[in-house]
Amino acid sequence: MGRMSDPVVTLTTDFGEASPFASAMKGVILSINPAARIVDLSHAIPPQDVRHAAFFLAQTVPYFPPGVIHVVVVDPGVGTERRLLYVEADGHRLLAPDNGACHLLLERSRARRLIRLAEARFWRPHVSHTFHGRDILAPVAGHLSLGLDPLQLGPRVEEWVPLDWPQPKCEGDRIIGEVVFVDQFGNLMTNIGTDGLPAEGPAKVKVEGHPAERWVRAYGEAAPGQLVALVSSSGFVEVAVVQGNAARRLDVGRGAAVHVWLREWLA
Amino acid sequence: MGRMSDPVVTLTTDFGEASPFASAMKGVILSINPAARIVDLSHAIPPQDVRHAAFFLAQTVPYFPPGVIHVVVVDPGVGTERRLLYVEADGHRLLAPDNGACHLLLERSRARRLIRLAEARFWRPHVSHTFHGRDILAPVAGHLSLGLDPLQLGPRVEEWVPLDWPQPKCEGDRIIGEVVFVDQFGNLMTNIGTDGLPAEGPAKVKVEGHPAERWVRAYGEAAPGQLVALVSSSGFVEVAVVQGNAARRLDVGRGAAVHVWLREWLA
Amino acid sequence: MGRMSDPVVTLTTDFGEASPFASAMKGVILSINPAARIVDLSHAIPPQDVRHAAFFLAQTVPYFPPGVIHVVVVDPGVGTERRLLYVEADGHRLLAPDNGACHLLLERSRARRLIRLAEARFWRPHVSHTFHGRDILAPVAGHLSLGLDPLQLGPRVEEWVPLDWPQPKCEGDRIIGEVVFVDQFGNLMTNIGTDGLPAEGPAKVKVEGHPAERWVRAYGEAAPGQLVALVSSSGFVEVAVVQGNAARRLDVGRGAAVHVWLREWLA
Repeated sequence: MGRMSDPVVTLTTDFGEASPFASAMKGVILSINPAARIVDLSHAIPPQDVRHAAFFLAQTVPYFPPGVIHVVVVDPGVGTERRLLYVEADGHRLLAPDNGACHLLLERSRARRLIRLAEARFWRPHVSHTFHGRDILAPVAGHLSLGLDPLQLGPRVEEWVPLDWPQPKCEGDRIIGEVVFVDQFGNLMTNIGTDGLPAEGPAKVKVEGHPAERWVRAYGEAAPGQLVALVSSSGFVEVAVVQGNAARRLDVGRGAAVHVWLREWLA
Repeated sequence: MGRMSDPVVTLTTDFGEASPFASAMKGVILSINPAARIVDLSHAIPPQDVRHAAFFLAQTVPYFPPGVIHVVVVDPGVGTERRLLYVEADGHRLLAPDNGACHLLLERSRARRLIRLAEARFWRPHVSHTFHGRDILAPVAGHLSLGLDPLQLGPRVEEWVPLDWPQPKCEGDRIIGEVVFVDQFGNLMTNIGTDGLPAEGPAKVKVEGHPAERWVRAYGEAAPGQLVALVSSSGFVEVAVVQGNAARRLDVGRGAAVHVWLREWLA
Repeated sequence: MGRMSDPVVTLTTDFGEASPFASAMKGVILSINPAARIVDLSHAIPPQDVRHAAFFLAQTVPYFPPGVIHVVVVDPGVGTERRLLYVEADGHRLLAPDNGACHLLLERSRARRLIRLAEARFWRPHVSHTFHGRDILAPVAGHLSLGLDPLQLGPRVEEWVPLDWPQPKCEGDRIIGEVVFVDQFGNLMTNIGTDGLPAEGPAKVKVEGHPAERWVRAYGEAAPGQLVALVSSSGFVEVAVVQGNAARRLDVGRGAAVHVWLREWLA
């Protein structure tokens, strides 16, 4: 062994798979670095949904080894004055529009470095006004994967466009938060952390007034069809229907109000 | 040349691409083995549809070279007492919940080895109750791809949870089976094998009473819009609408009754 | 370094991800060349939509480095007399049914080489009548990725099945074209090139009689909800709703009439 493994470049976009845009980016990256290993994270971010992208990246990027280059193209402001950034957050490296998509990662990181992409010699010779993913981010990713020092890409900057991410608040022994993500099973991920909760779970959890029937550790502890609350795989309060779809059952989505009472569970 | 190619780890999940779960698993695998080559098989298994996963794997895994590690996360029982298994079936290696997803592969294999995942030192330090794909299967896949002997993962077991897969039966010169898979074209894959059929095809094929108009070798032998029966690419009776969608035309899906008469074809 | 990077094989199909067909092809390729690097371009080409595939490939393949092997399976004629081709277009290499999917690439290329796949020794031993992607194209891709000389695959041919791709025409100072692709944002890609347009943009653009409100360089120059026309990322006239969906707003799709007047822009 002894040889280095080939560099990994990941892609997270809202391009879908039926459109040729993500694939064009793969071609550009491989044209610059034929040894790059392309890993798809998602091309199913809802169109121009920066908030979805931010949650996705916060739940994904930290599991990767440092050094991997993550290219993010959810870019409603393409062609305007919005900046493109190279971002380092605790050793994780991203290339993304400066629109909040990296905010959750940056906010939680201890070590950060941000560079504004300004050096056009690392871009494609002709840069379109509508597809900077292909014309700027992909070639820069290719060069970085070859070992380019990020300081060559442009000037360091200190600020980034933040995301207006909802924060839970306490009212007496009640925590008020909201649904921040609905997964493909219809499980409702909230912004309410579980570190301070009683070991046996909170007293009550309600989503838009609908009370969860039980607090469980795993879905399978309750019967199919029951509305349960539990600790999500990322450590937040989650509400789910066992082998069902809570979002459809309750007819709720992102932004739905979630209330958690801390006292003992009341069936 | 002469060097070994980097190990391949495939992923088959019901996570969809909009949710961050499959990507988190990729990160975990690459964190343990940066040289692993991740190959996506599917993240579009319908939610918690073990039967779909079983068919998918039976149609996919045998085409891969032995040694590839296939990680399967369709796991309605996550967090309950259901076991997680390392499975070898004729040299193909899988990591999956013990819920029947590997049943068709195991049943058809001559050489099998099953190991229950029990050695937590190969897992992530904190194991959630809702995402064993990320916390157990992905890190175990990473270690296996580095060459870990599977016997280190836990005790050998002999039994697995079988899948209640429908078997066709004969009544006189009629075979009675059912639709077991509907593909993206709306073609109806049945569980009726074609080895014993007359070379010129069976006499008649009906799906929920709708007779196929012709027995053909290839779709293109009939006119667009015709309902035809033929040998599927995996050797079973298939019913299709040429350049159309049989599932929609007949309004049928998995479980639809299929009858095959063996005598000569009667238009 | 000095070592060659492992060969890349891409896949473009209409198989979807829920069906096992694309994955079976990956297995076949890796069985023949375990070092092949599989890159997914798309498995979401609409079923049997050769025109969509042709546009997709024309927008994708040119960005890849020469040498990459692109396997294309959109194949309504599978099992009929339609030919399977190895295609070289300006150094880009494709394996595809001879149904027009490669037409746009071939038409625009200066150097071409076409070979009809005829040598069954590079195929799977048993070739089904319904899945030549798995049984012919995938194994041939595997062998090519190992360095096989394409001349071994079969006889050279000069002709290919063309695609009936719509050409814009001029009437006075008006160009009449049509929508040839709708992307995942609902942006309308037309077949009207922008090389001859005035620098400040054309005078007027209409889609099925609906006038665009402005000619812009980038979406972000107009207000959200405005219907704009601009130069697409591939150099054609595009019509879009800023942060919205033009296809839905105008209720139009592929084939919709597009008229462009060349004189100065009239609000």
